Amino acid sequence: MTTPVDPSPPRGMRDLLPAEVERRDAATACILDVYRRHGFRRIETPAVESLPLLLGSEGGENEKLVFKILKRGEKLAASAPAAELADLGLRFDLTVPLARYYAQNHARLPYPLKAIQIGPVWRAERPQRGRFRQFTQCDIDILGVETELAEVELILATTEALRALGLTDLTVRLNDRRVLLAMAEDCGFEPSRLGAFFVALDKLDKVGDAGVRAELTAAGHPVPAIDRLMSLLAERPGKRGLEEALAVLPVDPDDPAARGLRTVMGAVSGEGGSAIVFDPTLVRGMGYYTGQIFEIAYRNQPSSIAGGGRYDRMVGRLLGREVPACGFSIGFERIMAILQDHVSAPAAAPAHVALVLDAERDELAAALAAARRLREGGAHVSIERRARRWRRQLEELASHGFTGYALVPPAGAAPEVRPLGTGLKESQA
Amino acid sequence: MTTPVDPSPPRGMRDLLPAEVERRDAATACILDVYRRHGFRRIETPAVESLPLLLGSEGGENEKLVFKILKRGEKLAASAPAAELADLGLRFDLTVPLARYYAQNHARLPYPLKAIQIGPVWRAERPQRGRFRQFTQCDIDILGVETELAEVELILATTEALRALGLTDLTVRLNDRRVLLAMAEDCGFEPSRLGAFFVALDKLDKVGDAGVRAELTAAGHPVPAIDRLMSLLAERPGKRGLEEALAVLPVDPDDPAARGLRTVMGAVSGEGGSAIVFDPTLVRGMGYYTGQIFEIAYRNQPSSIAGGGRYDRMVGRLLGREVPACGFSIGFERIMAILQDHVSAPAAAPAHVALVLDAERDELAAALAAARRLREGGAHVSIERRARRWRRQLEELASHGFTGYALVPPAGAAPEVRPLGTGLKESQA
Repeated sequence: MTTPVDPSPPRGMRDLLPAEVERRDAATACILDVYRRHGFRRIETPAVESLPLLLGSEGGENEKLVFKILKRGEKLAASAPAAELADLGLRFDLTVPLARYYAQNHARLPYPLKAIQIGPVWRAERPQRGRFRQFTQCDIDILGVETELAEVELILATTEALRALGLTDLTVRLNDRRVLLAMAEDCGFEPSRLGAFFVALDKLDKVGDAGVRAELTAAGHPVPAIDRLMSLLAERPGKRGLEEALAVLPVDPDDPAARGLRTVMGAVSGEGGSAIVFDPTLVRGMGYYTGQIFEIAYRNQPSSIAGGGRYDRMVGRLLGREVPACGFSIGFERIMAILQDHVSAPAAAPAHVALVLDAERDELAAALAAARRLREGGAHVSIERRARRWRRQLEELASHGFTGYALVPPAGAAPEVRPLGTGLKESQA
Repeated sequence: MTTPVDPSPPRGMRDLLPAEVERRDAATACILDVYRRHGFRRIETPAVESLPLLLGSEGGENEKLVFKILKRGEKLAASAPAAELADLGLRFDLTVPLARYYAQNHARLPYPLKAIQIGPVWRAERPQRGRFRQFTQCDIDILGVETELAEVELILATTEALRALGLTDLTVRLNDRRVLLAMAEDCGFEPSRLGAFFVALDKLDKVGDAGVRAELTAAGHPVPAIDRLMSLLAERPGKRGLEEALAVLPVDPDDPAARGLRTVMGAVSGEGGSAIVFDPTLVRGMGYYTGQIFEIAYRNQPSSIAGGGRYDRMVGRLLGREVPACGFSIGFERIMAILQDHVSAPAAAPAHVALVLDAERDELAAALAAARRLREGGAHVSIERRARRWRRQLEELASHGFTGYALVPPAGAAPEVRPLGTGLKESQA
C-alpha cells in the first residue's frame, strides 16, 4: 500500500470531466430522441465477448485490435502457450456483437429488428493523435429488411439526428459494392486481389488519380486494368448525376444495384434536408459489406462523420441462415470534436444554484428547506459551505458552471437567487 | 470461419432486450434527474484501470475479483510467469476509479466535488444466482466535505431518487464505524482481529445472537469479550431511539461520532419522506469506511437496496494528502428486479406507431411523408412492410410494444392511427 500508484488513466484512455460528460450526454440524448422517433430501440450486449467470436470474423486481422482477457483460476495453466492464455476479449466494434446478439435472441426480438447501440468499444492498437483506446460508438441497424427501405430509413434517421445536433451542412455519399465489383471486373483486376484493389481506390480522395495508379502499379496489378480504371476515373463519374454516371460505368442501368441506388437517392432527395450524391469511388473499409455503402460528409471536413452499409451475410455465419442487415454508425467522438470547435452550445440548461451555508450547525435545516424549494422551481441546487475567501468562492462557482447563488433565508422566507458569472464583479461591488 | 461460434454471451453476462433496456433507461433517467437537481454531476472513468491500482487497494483480496487484460505485443514475453502476463484489468467497482480520478484531475474539478457515476463494473468470480459478472453500479460521492453535510445530502438525494422510482416504503439504517470500534474495544476484542469481529457481527440479521456467539467462539475470540457483546446485544440498542441506544452503548453522547449521528438523524427526519433509524449493529463490508455508514431497506426485502459511508483516507493514498470523502451506491440491478416484481410501470410512454407499407415501390414517398407527419405529432414511428399474415403481424406488433398502426394514406392526407393491443380482435373483426 505504500508504493505510490500513478493516478493517470491507462495509456490512450480518458477521464471525462463533468462539463465534458454533460456535452456528451446532451448529444446522446438528442441522437437517441431522433432515433426513437424513427422506431429504433436501444439494445445492449456485454462489453466482453468470446475470443473466437472477436478474432474469427475477419481472419487474423483483429489479432492486434483486441484487448484479450486472461483465463481465470485453474483454466489458466501456468505453462500454457501465449495463444491459450486468454478466452475472452473486449469488443472492438458494435457490429460483431450485434450479429451474435441476433443469432442468440432472434426468437424474442421483433422482426424486422431496428436496433440502436451506443456504448464504449476498445482497440488495443497504439492510438493515433486525437484517437483513443476506449471510445464511444453509436450505431443503428435494421435486421430483416432486404429492400432499400432499410437504407432509406437509416439515412433519413441519421441525417436528421445530425441536423438536430446543429450539423446542418451534410452531404450523403452513396455507392454499392456491386458497382465496385462490376468496375473491377470490367477493368480486368484479378478476382483474388479485389481487396488490394479496393484499398488502393479508397485512397483516391487523398492521393488523387496519379497516387492510385502508382499504388496499383507498385502492387503489380495488370497494366491494362489500371489503364482502363484511369480512363473510367477521368470521366469523373462522381461529379455527374446518377444516370449520367451509370452511363459511363460498366453497370446496366436496369440491374438491381442501379435500381436500388435510384430508389434511395429519390427517397432521400424527396424528403429534403440533406444532399445525396452517387460516388462510384466510395469504398469503405469493412470487407463484410455486400450492397449499398454510404458516408456522410460535414462541410469541408476531410473525414466522414458517419458511415455504413448493407452486410447481408454476417448474421448468417452465426445463425446458420441468412438475415438481411444494414447499418449506419455515427462517428461519435468526431462529432463531439466538431461540436466543440464549430457549433454553438445547445439550448438553455436549468439554473444551477449554489445555496451558501454559513453557520452550518444552526442553518442546516433552513438550508435543506430552501434547497428543496429552489429544486421544486426547477433549479439544480447544491448546498455549498461558505469559504473564507468569499469573492474567490463566487468566481470558482461561476467557473464550474453555477449560474447563481443564494444565501440561506430566514425560516419560511423564499431564498433570493443572485446571478453568477456575467457582471459578477459589479454585483459584488 | 466455418467453425460454428456459440452465440451465447460469455458466462455470467447478459444480452438486454429492447423492453429491458427501456425499463433500465427510464430508471436511470429518473435517478439522474433527482441527483442533478441535488447538484451532483456525472463523471466518467475508463472501464480499464492499471492492475496495481485494482489489486493494491485491498491487499490480495481483489486478486480473484478482477478480469485481467493480457499485455500486448512485445510486452508479453512468451515465457513470463503468470503474475507478469497482465498489466490492466476491468474495474470491479466505481470507488477505486473515483479516488484515482480525483487524484489525477482535482485541479480542474470543483471543490467540493459532487460526482455521479453510473456504469458497468465487472467481477470475475463465479456469479451467485441472480448476480452477473457485468452489472451496473450507480454511485454518488461527495469529496471535500468533512462535516455531516455530506452524509445528509447523500441520504436525502438517494432516498428522493428511490421514491421517484416508486419505492416509497424506505428505512435508512445508520451507524458509525467509530461506534463499532468503541463497542469492540469496550468488549475487549483483540485490536488485530477486528476484521473478523466485524464479519461475524455483520451476520446478526441472518443468524441471530446465538449464531454470532457461535461464530465468534469457533474463531477463538476471548470468551469474556463475547459475553460482554452478548449482554450489549441483549439490550437491543437497534430497537431504541438514538439517545436511549447511546445510553446503553460504550459511547460518550458528546463525542464527535454521537454528535454526527444526531445531526444526520435530525436533518433527515426533519426533511421527512423516509424513516431513519440508528442501528449500532450495522457493519457493511468494505474495510475502507472511516465514519458513518448507512444502508436503505425497502419494505421487508432481506437485502439492502443502497449502501454507503464515509471513507476519508482512500483518496489520500493516491493523492498524498487526505481528502474527506463520502459515498452512497444504489444497488441498480436489485432495484430493477424489485421494480419488475413489485412496482407498476412508469407513466405513459409516447405512442409507438407502425406505419404499414403495402406496395413498397409505389408508396415509399407517401409513407416517408406520413411517418414524418406522425413524428411531428410526437409519436415514435416505424415503417413496417405488410406481411402475408396480416392478423398475426398486428399481434406481433402489439407484443413488441407498438401501440397503434396506420396504413399509408393517399398523398396529402393525414395518416389514421388505429389502436393495437387491447381490443385488437374487435377492431379487426
